[in-house]
Amino acid sequence: MRERDLIARIQSQFSDKSNFLLKGIGDDCAVFADSENSCWLISTDLLVEDVHFVTDWHEPYILGRKSIAVNLSDIAAMGGQPHFILHSLVLPSHLSDQWLDRWHAGAQSMLDEFSCVLIGGDVSKGEQFAVNVVAIGSAHPKSVVYRSGASAGQDVYVTGYLGSSAAGLELLKKGHGPNSEYKDLIDAHLDPQPQVEIGLKLAEKGLASAMQDISDGIATDLSHLCRESNISAVVEAEKIPVDKLLIKQSFKTGLSALDFALYGGEDYQLIFTSTPENGEALQDLAKSTDTLITKIGKTHKGPTKVLLSEAGQMEDISYKGYEHI
Amino acid sequence: MRERDLIARIQSQFSDKSNFLLKGIGDDCAVFADSENSCWLISTDLLVEDVHFVTDWHEPYILGRKSIAVNLSDIAAMGGQPHFILHSLVLPSHLSDQWLDRWHAGAQSMLDEFSCVLIGGDVSKGEQFAVNVVAIGSAHPKSVVYRSGASAGQDVYVTGYLGSSAAGLELLKKGHGPNSEYKDLIDAHLDPQPQVEIGLKLAEKGLASAMQDISDGIATDLSHLCRESNISAVVEAEKIPVDKLLIKQSFKTGLSALDFALYGGEDYQLIFTSTPENGEALQDLAKSTDTLITKIGKTHKGPTKVLLSEAGQMEDISYKGYEHI
Repeated sequence: MRERDLIARIQSQFSDKSNFLLKGIGDDCAVFADSENSCWLISTDLLVEDVHFVTDWHEPYILGRKSIAVNLSDIAAMGGQPHFILHSLVLPSHLSDQWLDRWHAGAQSMLDEFSCVLIGGDVSKGEQFAVNVVAIGSAHPKSVVYRSGASAGQDVYVTGYLGSSAAGLELLKKGHGPNSEYKDLIDAHLDPQPQVEIGLKLAEKGLASAMQDISDGIATDLSHLCRESNISAVVEAEKIPVDKLLIKQSFKTGLSALDFALYGGEDYQLIFTSTPENGEALQDLAKSTDTLITKIGKTHKGPTKVLLSEAGQMEDISYKGYEHI
Repeated sequence: MRERDLIARIQSQFSDKSNFLLKGIGDDCAVFADSENSCWLISTDLLVEDVHFVTDWHEPYILGRKSIAVNLSDIAAMGGQPHFILHSLVLPSHLSDQWLDRWHAGAQSMLDEFSCVLIGGDVSKGEQFAVNVVAIGSAHPKSVVYRSGASAGQDVYVTGYLGSSAAGLELLKKGHGPNSEYKDLIDAHLDPQPQVEIGLKLAEKGLASAMQDISDGIATDLSHLCRESNISAVVEAEKIPVDKLLIKQSFKTGLSALDFALYGGEDYQLIFTSTPENGEALQDLAKSTDTLITKIGKTHKGPTKVLLSEAGQMEDISYKGYEHI
C-alpha cells in the first residue's frame, strides 16, 4: 500500500472529535488549544535505519541533528515557534554507547539552535535502529497557516533550492563523500536546516495563505496543499530554483535536475501560496532574512491537481513525489 | 546499560529550560501550559515486537488496545484527563492489511473508552513491528499529582491487584491461553485497563500527595516516587493485594506470588501516597468507584530506598523491578 493510501486508511478508521482540537490528521501538525490567544502544534516523524537513512553515510551526530530537524520543519510549515521535543529510540545491540552519545550530542545541537527542550521519550532494544521524534510548538490561533487556506488566482512560492537533498543522496549512493566537490548537495541531504524563522515571519505577517514543508518533493507536497485547498496549481519548470551544483551534477551524470527538484524528497524547504499583492512584501522579507524566495507558479480553480508547464507542454505531476513506504 | 541508567544518561545530556514547561523529564508525563487555569500532560511509550510483546500471544486487536492503554496509564498517573493520541508504526512486510486493520480497531476501541482522538502519527516499513504512542491529557495545574509530592509519615496505597500481569505472562510462556482457568491473570497481561477514572478522582479530591503508575513492579516504581520525593518507604509484604488466582497459580507452580507482585511489570495500576487523615475519604472513594484501594505501607525520612517488611525481617528492594532493556 502507498504511504498516502495507508494514511487515508488510518484516518478513515479513527474518529475525529474533541473540544480542544482545532485540526486533527491531514496537515503538517495537529493543532489544539485551551485558550483563545495561543494554540499548540504537534507533529511526529518516524525514521528507520535502511529506510530513511543509512548509518554508513549518516554519522550519528548528523543523524541526531536530522532526526530533530525533520520534525521542526513540520512546526515551521504551520508558522509555529517550536518548544519541546520527545524522542523514542529503538537500539540494536551493535550500537555502542559512544555512538549513542554522538547521536544525542547532534540532537542537542539542533535543539539548541531553536531553543527547544527535550521533555520526554522512551528507549527499547530492537533489531533495527529507529527513532520517533515528536515536536511541539506554539502559535497564535489566527496566525497558524494550514494547507487548506489557498484559493484560485494566488501565487505559489518556495523557499531555498529544490532537489539538492535528493541529488545529494544520489551522490552518496555513487560513493561521493561529504568532502567532495558536491559538498553543498550532500550537506543538504545529511544535515537539512528547518525553515523555522521564515515560516514564523510568513505567518506573523500574514504573507502565506497556505503552507507546508517539502519532504516528498513538490509534485506530492503541492498536491497535498491543492487537495486541502480544493484548487489546482500550475508550476513553471523554468522557474524552479535549483543550486548551480545540481546543474553541474546533472550535466555530468545525465540525471535530470528538474526531476530531482520536482520529485526528490527531503528538501525541508517551504512551499506556500500568497496573493499577488504580497509580491513586494515577500521580496522585502527575502532580503531582510537573506532567504531565497521564488515564485514558481499560480493556483487555479479545481479539480485538484498539479500541472507542470514546460516548453509549452502541460504534464500532470500530481503525487509523483518520493514515497517512503 | 540498564534502562534507568540510560534514561539518566539521556537526561544529563539535554538541557531543560523553557518558559512554558512545568515539568520536563522525570515523571510519568511532562507538563506544559500557556495559561494559568489549565495545563497539558504528555507521555510517550515505545513497544517493540519480541521485547514488549509476542505477536503469537497478542492478537492484533488486543495489541492495539494495549498500545494505547499503557500511555493512557501515564496520564492517569498524573491525575489527568486524556484527550489525544499520536502513533507511529514500523510495519514489517509479513503483516497483512487485515492484521493492521485489527490493530487499528483495537486501538480505536481503547480510544473510544476514554473519548480520546487520534490526531497524528507516521508509518514506515521496517524489519520488526514496533509502535510508538504519544498520549496528551489535560489537568488543572494545581491538581496535577507529581512523583515528588510525598513526605515522611504518609501512607502508601495501590489500586487493584499486583503481579497479575507478570503471572499472566508466565502462564502464556507455559502454553496457557486466554481461555484457560487463569483467564483473569492472562487478561491482566494482554488487555490491561488504565486507571484513568480513579487517577482523576484522586487528583481532583486532593487525596494523593504523589502518584505514579505501576509499569515495572512496585519495587522499582515506588523507588522512583521515593527518589523524587526524597523519602524512603516500608512496604508490608502481608498487605500486598494479590488476586486469588495468583495464589492458586503460585501453589501449583512453586513461583512466589509476592515476587510477581513486587517485581513483575505491566500491572498499570496506580501507586500513591496520602496523609493518614485521608484514610476514610479513600475508603469512601474505593466504594463509590468500586475500586480496590489498599494501604500497603508507610513513608519515612530518607535516604531514599524501598524496604520490604516480611516476617519481622527488612529487605532493601529498591529498583529490583522489571527491566525492559
